Amino acid sequence: MFNGLKRLRKDNTGYDLKQMFIGAEGTLGFVVEATMRLERQPTNLTAMILGTPDFDSIMPVLHAFQDKLDLTAFEFFSDKCLDKLLARGDIPAPFETRTPFYALLEFEATTEERAEQALATFEHCVNEGWVVDGVMSQSEQQLESLWKLREYISETISHFTPYKNDISVTVSKVPAFLADIDAIVSQSYPDFEVLWYGHIGDGNLHLNILKPESLSKEEFFDKCAAVNKWVFETVEKYNGSISAEHGVGMTKRDYLTYSRSEAEIAYMKAIKAAFDPNGIMNPGKVFAD
Amino acid sequence: MFNGLKRLRKDNTGYDLKQMFIGAEGTLGFVVEATMRLERQPTNLTAMILGTPDFDSIMPVLHAFQDKLDLTAFEFFSDKCLDKLLARGDIPAPFETRTPFYALLEFEATTEERAEQALATFEHCVNEGWVVDGVMSQSEQQLESLWKLREYISETISHFTPYKNDISVTVSKVPAFLADIDAIVSQSYPDFEVLWYGHIGDGNLHLNILKPESLSKEEFFDKCAAVNKWVFETVEKYNGSISAEHGVGMTKRDYLTYSRSEAEIAYMKAIKAAFDPNGIMNPGKVFAD
Repeated sequence: MFNGLKRLRKDNTGYDLKQMFIGAEGTLGFVVEATMRLERQPTNLTAMILGTPDFDSIMPVLHAFQDKLDLTAFEFFSDKCLDKLLARGDIPAPFETRTPFYALLEFEATTEERAEQALATFEHCVNEGWVVDGVMSQSEQQLESLWKLREYISETISHFTPYKNDISVTVSKVPAFLADIDAIVSQSYPDFEVLWYGHIGDGNLHLNILKPESLSKEEFFDKCAAVNKWVFETVEKYNGSISAEHGVGMTKRDYLTYSRSEAEIAYMKAIKAAFDPNGIMNPGKVFAD
Repeated sequence: MFNGLKRLRKDNTGYDLKQMFIGAEGTLGFVVEATMRLERQPTNLTAMILGTPDFDSIMPVLHAFQDKLDLTAFEFFSDKCLDKLLARGDIPAPFETRTPFYALLEFEATTEERAEQALATFEHCVNEGWVVDGVMSQSEQQLESLWKLREYISETISHFTPYKNDISVTVSKVPAFLADIDAIVSQSYPDFEVLWYGHIGDGNLHLNILKPESLSKEEFFDKCAAVNKWVFETVEKYNGSISAEHGVGMTKRDYLTYSRSEAEIAYMKAIKAAFDPNGIMNPGKVFAD
């Protein structure tokens, strides 16, 4: 048992043990108490949705805005996601133009000048051909309304029995990676509908494949098991992660080697033995015992 | 050997091994390659120096500015430090008024409105009685000139054979902690000159005691060994760190228990054994083998 609740901003006396517990999924021990640092309240959060002519254009848009503003979010979703959202009937389109992909970005419009800087950057992106159309929230209500276009995707597509994946690669490699996965899936299963969305500013993509009506759940998930292997092989080729946010647990345990080397897994097991010599902490999760 | 150079912003597949190497002082292995993330260039960095009537006033000043601006620095130094700086002859005073303590803060004045917000906060601090006088840089040259008042302290006092310490406590406890240390030193060694400066926004204080001319180096450092024990006991009482930035090495190795519990040290040793089973990595540093 140890207490790491010192609340120090700086401490350089040996190893920072709490770091091992972050993302350990209970395999090293229980966390029974935590200290959180509060940040200041954000001021006048403002969102923009920008329609792009292709996926590749999203990256220069990200960099153009990152260069001018401290972004608090940079998300994306495909036009197929928008299709499903609009079919609900309760979420309006961000603007009339339809484009293959959409970026959603957010920043603090603390001053008039900042909002103007965002608009100038938007114009720059339009002139460069990276953005076709766009909208900026003018109120808290409009901010919430724009966020629905990103936040309601997961719930909206849940009725289509999606095969889901939560993968990440280096931000600069995202376009090539996405194109590779798209090619693999459409080549082998041309009737599968692939929906992309995610936290593109972090290189974190949520890949969703919807079940065709013609297939039973069992048939669909059998085929997805094959897709899974190709996706993870592509992740490995791009030096990415098979689980950006959602951990390993039991589902991805047997695929861990696609993301972590044998040497890393050996060190992880040695660290587990150091904290949990009797192997009683959440056994069987993350890696086989 | 393992490769942690994936450059992923997000990866949730098991333990984040590189975290153990940060601050390990070579006791776990060699780092032979590193990847760095570049941040955008800061825009129009602007510094303020504010004179405060006492040390306690620095804390509400910190909070008032943190509330309004994203600070890129918040430092402090005592009037005794300013004495030594002015004696050099090549560094001018920030303003005519002399006050017991000075805060140096920095922010990006990206817009006119931000600079105005900083001035309004300054006025608020004056009205509250936390600040007596102040100055804000109007050019890059003035920014550099103000920073000299903080950055040249260490070099300037090096001629006085200072006994130095690098300690941290939770930000909110800094005033009580500093008062305790001051009381201990002045009670036992009233002829010792104590100079305080540091990264107060991080709770990180540099305690410097200057050698009185009447004492030889040996006598002075003998007395400082006693001071050391009192300082570290006070750090322990306040749940702080005996080394905020500068590591443990051999000098602070025998004092590690003032900052880390027996349990933590046992876990650290177990982690060392996991990475360095033969005990050949920088032996004798951080903790005794």
